[in-house]
Amino acid sequence: MRAVDIIIKKRDGGALSRDEIAFIVTGVTSGTIPDYQASALLMAVLVRGMTPEETFWLTDAMVHSGVRVDLSDIEGAKVDKHSTGGVGDKTSLILAPLAAACGVRVPMMSGRGLGHTGGTLDKLEAIPGFRVGLSLDQMKAALRKTGCAMIGQTAEIAPADKKLYALRDVTGTVESIPLISASIMSKKLAEGIDALVLDVKTGSGAFMKTEDDSRRLAQSLVSIGKASGVKTEALITAMHAPLGCAVGNAIEVIECIEVLKGRGPADLIEISLELTARMLVLGGAATTVADGTARARAAIDSGAGLERFRQIVEHQGGDPRVVDDYSRLPAAPERHVVKAPRAGFVSRLDAELVGRASVMLGAGRDRVQDPVDPAVGIMVLAVPGTRVKAGDGILELHYRDRARLASAEPLAGRAIVMADVPPPRTPLILGEVS
Amino acid sequence: MRAVDIIIKKRDGGALSRDEIAFIVTGVTSGTIPDYQASALLMAVLVRGMTPEETFWLTDAMVHSGVRVDLSDIEGAKVDKHSTGGVGDKTSLILAPLAAACGVRVPMMSGRGLGHTGGTLDKLEAIPGFRVGLSLDQMKAALRKTGCAMIGQTAEIAPADKKLYALRDVTGTVESIPLISASIMSKKLAEGIDALVLDVKTGSGAFMKTEDDSRRLAQSLVSIGKASGVKTEALITAMHAPLGCAVGNAIEVIECIEVLKGRGPADLIEISLELTARMLVLGGAATTVADGTARARAAIDSGAGLERFRQIVEHQGGDPRVVDDYSRLPAAPERHVVKAPRAGFVSRLDAELVGRASVMLGAGRDRVQDPVDPAVGIMVLAVPGTRVKAGDGILELHYRDRARLASAEPLAGRAIVMADVPPPRTPLILGEVS
Repeated sequence: MRAVDIIIKKRDGGALSRDEIAFIVTGVTSGTIPDYQASALLMAVLVRGMTPEETFWLTDAMVHSGVRVDLSDIEGAKVDKHSTGGVGDKTSLILAPLAAACGVRVPMMSGRGLGHTGGTLDKLEAIPGFRVGLSLDQMKAALRKTGCAMIGQTAEIAPADKKLYALRDVTGTVESIPLISASIMSKKLAEGIDALVLDVKTGSGAFMKTEDDSRRLAQSLVSIGKASGVKTEALITAMHAPLGCAVGNAIEVIECIEVLKGRGPADLIEISLELTARMLVLGGAATTVADGTARARAAIDSGAGLERFRQIVEHQGGDPRVVDDYSRLPAAPERHVVKAPRAGFVSRLDAELVGRASVMLGAGRDRVQDPVDPAVGIMVLAVPGTRVKAGDGILELHYRDRARLASAEPLAGRAIVMADVPPPRTPLILGEVS
Repeated sequence: MRAVDIIIKKRDGGALSRDEIAFIVTGVTSGTIPDYQASALLMAVLVRGMTPEETFWLTDAMVHSGVRVDLSDIEGAKVDKHSTGGVGDKTSLILAPLAAACGVRVPMMSGRGLGHTGGTLDKLEAIPGFRVGLSLDQMKAALRKTGCAMIGQTAEIAPADKKLYALRDVTGTVESIPLISASIMSKKLAEGIDALVLDVKTGSGAFMKTEDDSRRLAQSLVSIGKASGVKTEALITAMHAPLGCAVGNAIEVIECIEVLKGRGPADLIEISLELTARMLVLGGAATTVADGTARARAAIDSGAGLERFRQIVEHQGGDPRVVDDYSRLPAAPERHVVKAPRAGFVSRLDAELVGRASVMLGAGRDRVQDPVDPAVGIMVLAVPGTRVKAGDGILELHYRDRARLASAEPLAGRAIVMADVPPPRTPLILGEVS
């Protein structure tokens, strides 16, 4: 088998065989297939696409490029959630303790923020002492003890994905539904889970800008999960404006704790409960979505979810006192309020621009090697639909560095769209794929 | 400017600017753009295409990646010919001395054979002592002395093409008309010529299998030449069967000398005269194609072309006595005749299969680093249209190694198609683009 023949086959629109795909993934992982052949093939795949079968085989080969974690010696259903990424998207910190409190195990491997979207690991690390770098054995111990482990991807998990993703990032081959699907699902399937709930974001703050693309991605993800014997469901949710009111790291942690205390923004609560409910149903801890939602809500009302969050933080080395004392979290020294330019309704709050402004402040990164500042970020003071007077605060920028503020402020200003009439109410949950 | 943004632009079907193309070619040449980005872009170009403007800018940037030879201090019109490659395609050895004898200068940089097609350099090197590795100064001296230099591409000429071609070969990005055009024309334009005649081959033995593709390639080549201020014309010629009767190296040299002596196969004479005539017209040494053809024929009849060939061989270190004594050329020790399986007409003689059989015997190479055997090859004993009896010889395989013969013979056998009726007469010269 020669790599160049496989490239030509895909270039000309052919479907690759399972063996051909395995040959490529094995060669990329071991280095016998050079990067220049891999990138030519990635471009051919982006342009010509892949059938569902090819996408499944690609995922499967990527899973087998590394370790598939064996969680069979841990009692109970192991259920994870994965979001395709958004601005202010912090549901993991809410639903993981809620689902664990309701009786499923949550082995969650997350990523870091990149571009305008945030990442769960960066948020967790805003909690003083919190360690995300657990080994697989430590992950299992956490699962036994707290019912949940929230960690970074280890080197043993899908090494082919690491190589291919780095290559895609610099060769213009990121935006391909088969490649995105295989990348996401190879990492999730390697976790050894029984079930998976996907939150596929759509809109300006998401990687998929249209509902059509989001639905196609959701269908691709769900079909890979099912073909691999993992119960899989996807929600398609709106990501036009930031989710909740906090965009940053420490301030997002506070917002999550607020939700676990029974407070917090309505949109964030709605999506968190819906995702938790589906995790419970797939994990056998609830009979219906309505039953799951009721159980999740009860875990908030009883304080069981908050208590579980405290245990998770403590078990992973973090300071559990942050739950009661937010001043133990890093805070930015300065604040600047972006005001309404005129009276009227906040019609839109562009998620991508808010996300990019937050990156400018230092809360995110454009390159993987950049550090993030856990303290800075943006608070939404007036969500879309709010009626304001001229000069009322819309966004509050938490900053450390005046030069960064100067870069962020124009983006934040452009994110705000005013109108004389309230915007139409649009649903947050746009559909499901199961 | 970032390479990844340029890749994405082309991936999405955009037209690249002159600056973007120059950025890529400069970066590929210097190594600041890694191979994996270059190959992703090459694949995007293959799939999305390039406008004529982009193709011209690519060619221009590739010319400027190296030296553009200055021949302005050499009197007379400098005219070259380039063929896209075929089986038995040996016209260079005939038309270069003829055109030089008729008063134009021929600075000809050629390539080696690859795959089923032969290369001019391999044929010249079948002449004992012939040196193709002249420096640019030696090339100029040859042009002044004999009116012709037949050499290999020097390292100074279009180094970007060398890098890109090596990458295309292993990444499935060879078959792109813009990339083929830029590769051919960058080398030819860097020679410092005033005019260029192109022989675009079409058919089984050519890289372009259809007349449509050949015409598109011819148009692309001619438009680049004209935009660069070089008088350029292309003929589209048939390459379904081998050109002439000899396929190999030493045996092709003999056939060329035969043509210069006023003998040789009709098809080879026709194409050689037609190409020479157009070189003379573009170089101002003939008024019309008919005039050019008459002058070329006169140079054969008078022996001036043969004499010029002798001078070229001698000036480049070769043994000029081969002209009169073919036994001074290498010859294969063994011969094997492939016979007509039944009586009838030779209906087809598949050029690609004959070419591949010849490579099997050792006359060509599949990889650039492989050596060739100048002595071996295939003689066509019965050209298409010939009426034969069962057992008459059709192809004569000149071989050295019995194992190689065993690999070549089935291919040679498959190349022969017999029929009860003579094949339709098809023209050799299918069109022109000017």
